[in-house]
Amino acid sequence: MPRYRIVIEYDGGPFVGWQRQANGPSVQQALEEAVRAFSGENVVVKGAGRTDAGVHALGQVAHFDLERERGTDTIRDAVNAHLRPQPITVISAEEAAADFDARFSAKRRHYLYRISDRRAPPALDRGRVWWVMQPLAADAMHEAAQALIGQHDFTTFRSAECQAKSPVKTLDRLDVSRDGNEVIVRADARSFLHNQVRSMVGALKKVGEGKWPVGAVGEALEARDRSRSGPVAPPDGLYLVAVDY
Amino acid sequence: MPRYRIVIEYDGGPFVGWQRQANGPSVQQALEEAVRAFSGENVVVKGAGRTDAGVHALGQVAHFDLERERGTDTIRDAVNAHLRPQPITVISAEEAAADFDARFSAKRRHYLYRISDRRAPPALDRGRVWWVMQPLAADAMHEAAQALIGQHDFTTFRSAECQAKSPVKTLDRLDVSRDGNEVIVRADARSFLHNQVRSMVGALKKVGEGKWPVGAVGEALEARDRSRSGPVAPPDGLYLVAVDY
Repeated sequence: MPRYRIVIEYDGGPFVGWQRQANGPSVQQALEEAVRAFSGENVVVKGAGRTDAGVHALGQVAHFDLERERGTDTIRDAVNAHLRPQPITVISAEEAAADFDARFSAKRRHYLYRISDRRAPPALDRGRVWWVMQPLAADAMHEAAQALIGQHDFTTFRSAECQAKSPVKTLDRLDVSRDGNEVIVRADARSFLHNQVRSMVGALKKVGEGKWPVGAVGEALEARDRSRSGPVAPPDGLYLVAVDY
Repeated sequence: MPRYRIVIEYDGGPFVGWQRQANGPSVQQALEEAVRAFSGENVVVKGAGRTDAGVHALGQVAHFDLERERGTDTIRDAVNAHLRPQPITVISAEEAAADFDARFSAKRRHYLYRISDRRAPPALDRGRVWWVMQPLAADAMHEAAQALIGQHDFTTFRSAECQAKSPVKTLDRLDVSRDGNEVIVRADARSFLHNQVRSMVGALKKVGEGKWPVGAVGEALEARDRSRSGPVAPPDGLYLVAVDY
């Protein structure tokens, strides 16, 4: 039974998130239905990252099994044809080893968070950035972020609904930089807690607008207390960029 | 009677174009209504470039007059408040000289055209790029483009509806380069004929896919014959980036 690995791009805006849910359309369901439409087979498409409602992907990775072997170009093109007009696209498809698991084999996940801090609301990037309306100090945000690098108990930056067994994670990168009217946050780790990136970005924004001193982010981490987190940043600015195996 | 100059960003997708038309919503009408809603004054908002339906702007420039003087920050924020939820935003507003004319004072217009030549259809950039599905040779396109630089009779690359008195224009720049899965075309001139950028991009795409030799673009120009143009590229990939005065 051949296993396939696909890389997927999507606009998270119209979806309840990656995962199948009773309350609306999910990316997973759209993919499963598109695979079924072309292959006639009922499949489960398992993703590397269970992105929330409104969160985007430039390089989500998923796997599924088919009874019958198919060409990978055929899979990519046929699934894309059946996905239309939904804003989900299979960038590539390849055969994977039988023990490949998009979620559990992942060695590193790369996320990007875009904040627009210009005065004017976004027109072309509506739903694609967090519009904060006042200028942020990206340098101070970057400095504050460095306190989160390494292995820590990230309870402060974890959602109440997080199902991970342990709140201990290892954050490899949390870089903040400016690109014109945007502040760009890049976060890399083997895995993240639920809402961890958005919680960390919410705290960093407090530093950027001068409401928190630079040291407050590290102190919030050490407190291991969810009430010490800043507000959770909205999903609009978050992108799952790539997954390494 | 104070005159104001505004810089505007918009997603051209939902509009019939910049200019007021009977057959649907225009960017100009949306701006005029937003100015009236906050000021109580009926104004004409005159733009530097009359972008077509579906064409976007990162930095369209326009001017209008008010009876009563207003703060430029107030104009920007109030017009933006009344524009919601339409994907149009005033990036900046400033006072202008009484003889400033967004259209006729313009010294140079900068356009950008984005082509996606990856196999997978765009998800996040749908409506924002021309998806051509097969790899283009950007180097050959750039070489072909150089035949169009300078002052020429651009009849070949002019739409049948073009109202310009003369087909002679001076093209200052037509650069083609690759950025990942995109081919980027940058076109600068004091002014362009109707559909000129999209016609030139359509011809360059023929070169990029190997259907026209590099020299064919210059030959088409010299023919001064609209039937020698390639297909007109769709509006989705076109952006009015900036206007110089």
